[in-house]
Amino acid sequence: MRYDDTSGNESAMAEGVSKDPLVLFMPSGKRGRFPIGTPVLEAARKLGVYVESVCGGRATCGRCQVEVQEGNFAKHKIVSSNDHISARGPKEERYDRVRGLPEGRRLSCSAEILGDLVIDVPQDTVVNAQVVRKAATDRVIERNAAVQLCYVEVEEPDMHKPLGDLDRLKAVLEKDWGWKDLLIAPHLIPQVQSILRKGNWGVTAAIHRDMDSSRPFIVGLWPDLKNEAYGIACDIGSTTIAMHLVSLLSGRIVGSSGTSNPQIRFGEDLMSRVSYVMMNPDGREAMTKAVREALNGLIGKVCEEGGVHREDILDMVFVANPIMHHLFLGIDPTELGQAPFALAVSGALQYWAHEIDIDVNRGTRVYMLPCIAGHVGADAAGATLSEGPYRQDKMMLLVDVGTNAEIILGNRERVVAASSPTGPAFEGAEISSGQRAAPGAIERIRIDPVTLEPKFRVIGVDLWSDEEGFEEAAASVGVTGICGSAIIEVVAEMYLSGIISEDGVVDGSLAERSHRIIPNGRTFSYLLRGDGEQRITVTQNDVRAIQLAKAALYAGIKLLMEKQGVEKVDAIRFAGAFGSFIDPKYAMVLGLIPDCDLSEVKAVGNAAGTGALMALLNRGHRREIEQMVKKIEKIETALEGNFQQLFIDAMALPNKVDPFPELAKIVALPERKVITAGGEDGGGRRRRRERG
Amino acid sequence: MRYDDTSGNESAMAEGVSKDPLVLFMPSGKRGRFPIGTPVLEAARKLGVYVESVCGGRATCGRCQVEVQEGNFAKHKIVSSNDHISARGPKEERYDRVRGLPEGRRLSCSAEILGDLVIDVPQDTVVNAQVVRKAATDRVIERNAAVQLCYVEVEEPDMHKPLGDLDRLKAVLEKDWGWKDLLIAPHLIPQVQSILRKGNWGVTAAIHRDMDSSRPFIVGLWPDLKNEAYGIACDIGSTTIAMHLVSLLSGRIVGSSGTSNPQIRFGEDLMSRVSYVMMNPDGREAMTKAVREALNGLIGKVCEEGGVHREDILDMVFVANPIMHHLFLGIDPTELGQAPFALAVSGALQYWAHEIDIDVNRGTRVYMLPCIAGHVGADAAGATLSEGPYRQDKMMLLVDVGTNAEIILGNRERVVAASSPTGPAFEGAEISSGQRAAPGAIERIRIDPVTLEPKFRVIGVDLWSDEEGFEEAAASVGVTGICGSAIIEVVAEMYLSGIISEDGVVDGSLAERSHRIIPNGRTFSYLLRGDGEQRITVTQNDVRAIQLAKAALYAGIKLLMEKQGVEKVDAIRFAGAFGSFIDPKYAMVLGLIPDCDLSEVKAVGNAAGTGALMALLNRGHRREIEQMVKKIEKIETALEGNFQQLFIDAMALPNKVDPFPELAKIVALPERKVITAGGEDGGGRRRRRERG
Repeated sequence: MRYDDTSGNESAMAEGVSKDPLVLFMPSGKRGRFPIGTPVLEAARKLGVYVESVCGGRATCGRCQVEVQEGNFAKHKIVSSNDHISARGPKEERYDRVRGLPEGRRLSCSAEILGDLVIDVPQDTVVNAQVVRKAATDRVIERNAAVQLCYVEVEEPDMHKPLGDLDRLKAVLEKDWGWKDLLIAPHLIPQVQSILRKGNWGVTAAIHRDMDSSRPFIVGLWPDLKNEAYGIACDIGSTTIAMHLVSLLSGRIVGSSGTSNPQIRFGEDLMSRVSYVMMNPDGREAMTKAVREALNGLIGKVCEEGGVHREDILDMVFVANPIMHHLFLGIDPTELGQAPFALAVSGALQYWAHEIDIDVNRGTRVYMLPCIAGHVGADAAGATLSEGPYRQDKMMLLVDVGTNAEIILGNRERVVAASSPTGPAFEGAEISSGQRAAPGAIERIRIDPVTLEPKFRVIGVDLWSDEEGFEEAAASVGVTGICGSAIIEVVAEMYLSGIISEDGVVDGSLAERSHRIIPNGRTFSYLLRGDGEQRITVTQNDVRAIQLAKAALYAGIKLLMEKQGVEKVDAIRFAGAFGSFIDPKYAMVLGLIPDCDLSEVKAVGNAAGTGALMALLNRGHRREIEQMVKKIEKIETALEGNFQQLFIDAMALPNKVDPFPELAKIVALPERKVITAGGEDGGGRRRRRERG
Repeated sequence: MRYDDTSGNESAMAEGVSKDPLVLFMPSGKRGRFPIGTPVLEAARKLGVYVESVCGGRATCGRCQVEVQEGNFAKHKIVSSNDHISARGPKEERYDRVRGLPEGRRLSCSAEILGDLVIDVPQDTVVNAQVVRKAATDRVIERNAAVQLCYVEVEEPDMHKPLGDLDRLKAVLEKDWGWKDLLIAPHLIPQVQSILRKGNWGVTAAIHRDMDSSRPFIVGLWPDLKNEAYGIACDIGSTTIAMHLVSLLSGRIVGSSGTSNPQIRFGEDLMSRVSYVMMNPDGREAMTKAVREALNGLIGKVCEEGGVHREDILDMVFVANPIMHHLFLGIDPTELGQAPFALAVSGALQYWAHEIDIDVNRGTRVYMLPCIAGHVGADAAGATLSEGPYRQDKMMLLVDVGTNAEIILGNRERVVAASSPTGPAFEGAEISSGQRAAPGAIERIRIDPVTLEPKFRVIGVDLWSDEEGFEEAAASVGVTGICGSAIIEVVAEMYLSGIISEDGVVDGSLAERSHRIIPNGRTFSYLLRGDGEQRITVTQNDVRAIQLAKAALYAGIKLLMEKQGVEKVDAIRFAGAFGSFIDPKYAMVLGLIPDCDLSEVKAVGNAAGTGALMALLNRGHRREIEQMVKKIEKIETALEGNFQQLFIDAMALPNKVDPFPELAKIVALPERKVITAGGEDGGGRRRRRERG
C-alpha cells in the first residue's frame, strides 16, 4: 500500500506522526518515516542523504548501492532486518548477473522499504573493477561534485512537434532530473544528433551545476550509460606541482603524482621568475607554456596510474601562489613584483580547460580558488579551506613556510592573514652547507651539551652517525650537506647546547673545550663533519640567515596575534613540504613559531592541495572559501609601524621578549648568556625573560 | 534647491501631487515632475526614456544630447523654454570646445531642470564625424542593445585592501552602473592591468547584458573613453548573404552589403547541398568553411563602407534557413534532408564569434534566432519578428518564396506556420527560358488579349519593347531569358489573354490567329521573342512547372487558413527578393496567394534581415521571438490528409474552388474555358466559380 506523495514530506516524516516505517541512514544519522513501498533511494533523497545515481533509477549504473544493517538498534528504537526490505526484483537480478552485486549490497533505486531499517551508505561504491585503488586521504570529504552524470531517454523526433534534438534532450533532463535553463558547451552542438542516434535515444549527459555563469551546462554527452567521471585537484607550487586524480562518483583518489615545475629553468624562486618576465619580451609566454605543458604531462602520468582516459576528466580545481596563478593563466606577474603588489584578479575564476591549453575533455571546466592578497595566494586559500580555522573556536595559526611565508590566524570569529618575506634560508639556499633534501643530506641532528659532539642522520641511511655501521652505510650516498629541516634543528641544538647565545652568536671561547668550534675570520663556526673540502660547518653567517628568516616569520605571526588581540595561539598547523619535515619542538626552540601546547602543533602536508581536493569533490567548499576570502583581513606587514620592533625582538632565540611557558615544560632552555662576537654588536636592550 | 531622492519616485512623479516642474520627453511622450536641479538625463532614466550615455555623466561622450522645444504646448499645459533649463556649465562648454555641440543641443547629463520643459531626444545623435552615413531603414527600432559601453574610474591598488585590479573594476562597475555579478571574457583577464594603467585608471568596459548564461559579462575593455560600438545583422540565404553594419550607440546603419553564398559551388539549392554532405566525407566542413570565409569577407566590406574597424564590432545577430543555420554552425544537416526533418537544435543560440571562426572583436557574441521547424528556419523567425503578425488583430499572411516557401499565418490570438516545397520554378530554374535576374532578362510582360502580341521590358533597358529605340537600347544587353518575377507575370498574362485555360493548357487552336502560338510536340508554346536559337518561348511544361509551384504554395496557405478557421486573410506580406519584384496583382491572378484587398498586399524585402536588425538593436526583441517561436503551431503539410486535394484544386488558375472577389474588382478574369491538350487529361471535377 502506498500513500500519496505528500506523506513523504516534512510533517509526515516527523517521527511519531505516522506509523510508516522508520529508516535511519548511516553514517549520516539522518532518519525519517516513509510509506511502505518507498524506494530506499527516494527516502535518502528526501532526507538529503547523498547517494550517487547515474541511471536515474533504472538499476543499470550500480552507483546507488546500500547495505541493510541487521539487528536491534535499541538506542534508535529500530529493529532492522533484511526482511524489512523488498526482495531483489528482476532489474536488480539482471544487474547482479551482468555487473555483479557484492553479498549484502542492494540497489537503493530498486529496493523498497517494507519496515524499519538501518541503512548503511558505503563511502565508496566501486563499480568499475579496473580502477586502480590508492589509499585515499584520511579525510572523508562529503561529496557534492560540480559535475553530475545523468542518463536519460530522449523522445524521438516528431514532425508534429518540431523541437530540435538538443531541445528535446534538455526537456527530458528537466523532466527526469530537474535541470532548468540548461545551456550546452558549444563543441557538443554538432555532435548531439549522432550521439542520440548512436545511443538509440538513450544518452548520458554530464551536467556542470557550478558554472560561474549560474546556469547549469551540458558539458559532456555519451551514447548509452556513461558510468564514470574523474576530476583533477592540483597545486602549482614554484618548485613542485602536485596532482590528484579522483573519481567524482566515488570520491576515491585513483592517482597522485608530482613533478618539478619546469619554470625553475627561468628562475629558482618567484622573484627571479618575475625578473625574467621583465627582462625578456617572450618570458611570460614561455613560462606559461612551460607550466601548462608540465601539467599536461602530469595529467598523463596520473591517468596512467589510475587506468583512466584523460577524456574522462570532467572537472579540475587548481591552487597556486599568486605568481604561479598569474603565469598559469597567462597573466603578466610584473605588478606582483613591486609595491603595491597588485593582483590582476583576486576572485575565483573559471575557464574551459582548453582555453588555457589543458588537454582533457573539451567540456571540462577549470576552477581556480581565489587569492587572498598579492603575496597570499590561492594556495593559502586552499590551505585555509583544508584546515578551516574559521570553522572552530580555537585560535589557530596556519603557516606555510617557503621563500615567502603565508600566515593565517583566526577562529570562527575573525581571520587575519599576512605574508612575510622569510627568504630562501629555510630552503637551504643561503646556508654555506645547505642543500635540497636528497640522499646524503643531513636530516636530523643532536648535539651533546657536555661534549658538544654531534650525531646525525642522512637521507638514505637508517642509522644515526654514532651507530655501528653508519660509515659503511653512508659510503654510497656520502654526507653532502644539510637540508632545510635539519638547519632548523642544528641551530636549535647549537642554542640548547650553549654553542650559540640567545642572540645567536657562536661562543668562540668554547674552542678551548672542543675542536668543533673553529675560527672563521672574525667569527666562529661549528664543525659538523669531516675536514678539508668535505667539511660541513654551520657558520656565524648561517646562524644569522636562519635568525633573519625566523624573525621575519615570527614578527609576521606576532603582528597577526596583535591584530587578533591574543597573547597565545591554541593550535598551529604547518602546511607545505617544509612543515612536514621539521620537528615542531625545534621550530619552537628557535622561535620560528610562538609558544603553544606541542600536542596542538601539527604538520598537515600539502594542505593547499587538500583544499583543492575538497573544492573538487564538493562545490559547497567553493562558496565557502570564496566567501571566507572576502572576509579575511589582510595585513601588509611592511606597512605596520611596529613590524620592525617585532622583527628585532624575534632575532633572539627563541625571542627577546616573548615567554615560551609551554616549551619550557618539555625543554630545558639555557640560561641567558651574552657574547659579543667579533664585528658584532651583540648588545641591545635587555629584558627579563619569563619562563612558565 | 534640491529635494531628496524620494521626490523623483513614482508617487511624486504623479502629476499634480507636487509643484515640481513638469517635463515631457518627445517622441516617446513620457512625462513626469522632477525637482528643480534634476539633471535631464536622470529624469529620462527615471521615466524609462532611452537616452544613451557612455561616460556616466562626465560630459565627455556627448551621447546624451537633447534639445529643448520652445513654445506653449497647450495640449500638455506646458510652456517650454530654454530659460527653464540650466545654462551651459564648464563641463558642457569644454565638450563644445573639444568635440563641438550643435546649435540648440544640450548634454542631458549636465543640463538641469529649472522649469517646465518639452525635451526632444534626437533619434540618432552622431558624435563621430567620420562615420559614413547611409539612409537608415524606414523603421525606427527602439534601442536596447545587448552591449553597453560604460566608462568608469577604477580605484588604484591599495596594499591595505588587496582586491585584484579586475575585482576593483567590477566593484566600480557595480557602484556606478549597477552591474551585479559581472563575469569577464577570459581573453581580457591578462589585459586588465595594462589597460587600467594605460588609461590612468579611467577605462571603458563593454558590458554584454544579454548573455544566455544570464549574468552580465565584460566583453571589451579600453583605456580612457571608448565612444563607439558597432553590431552586425546578417541573413545567410542559400543564394545571397545580406549584412548590415549598425552603430549600437546611435542605431544608424553605416554599411549594408551582400554577397553570393559560396556554397553555391557545392550545390545550387538546399537539397543538393545536403546531398553533397552525404556524398563527401569532408563536405560539411568545406561548406562551413566557405560560408564563414564569405561572412568574414563581407564584414570587411561593410566595415570599409562604414569606415569602421572590425575590432569595434561588439555584437552580431544572424538569421538563416535551417540548412544554412546548421552548416554555418558546423552541424551536419543530413537529418534535415529526410523525414522527420529533425533539427539538431531549434532554440536560440549564442556563441563567441571566434568559436565559429568569425573574425571580429575577440569578445563579440553571436546571437542566432531560433528556428521554427525543420523547414521553417531562423530566417522565418526573423521575418515573423519583423512583420509581427502576433502584434496585431488582422489575420496576416507572411510568405517567403524560395525553393521552399515559408508560410506564417496569424494574429494576436494565434500563429501557425508551415513550409511548402515550391521547387525552383519561381527562381526560373525549371523554366525553358528562365534565367536569374540580370541585364537582358525579361522582367515585365503584357500580352494584348486581342492580338496576343506581347510587350516587355528587360533589365538594364528603360523602354518597353514596343517603344521606339528599344532594339537599339537592348542591343548591348540582349534579350536573354525570363527572370523569376516575370515568369509569374507571363503565365498570368497568358491566362488573362486566353492563351491558357483555367487548367493551364495552352490553347493550340489559337495558332490559327497568331504566329506566336507554336506547336511543340504534342503541346503548344507561346513565342515571346525571336526565332531560331535566340527564341524565347513559354512552353506547356513551363506553365505546368509554375502551376505545380504555385499550387504547392497555395495549398500550404489554405491548410493554415483552415487551421485558423478563416475564409480570407486581411493582409499579405511578401518577404524575400522574389517578393520584392513580383506584382501582387499577377501573383493573385495566378492564385499564388489567396484573395485579399490588394492595398493590403505588400512586399517587405528582406524581412528576415530586418528581424535580425531588430534583435541586434533591442534585446527585448530576442525574448519576444524566442517566446513567440515556442507558441507558433507548426503544421507539417505532408502529414495533413487534405493537402493533396487542396493542391489539386490549386493547380487551376487562380483556383478551382476558391473565390477571388477582391481580385475580381480590379481584374477582369476570363470566362472558364476547358481545353484538352494533347497528352493531357485537362478534365477533372468541375465546380462553379463564384466571383464576388
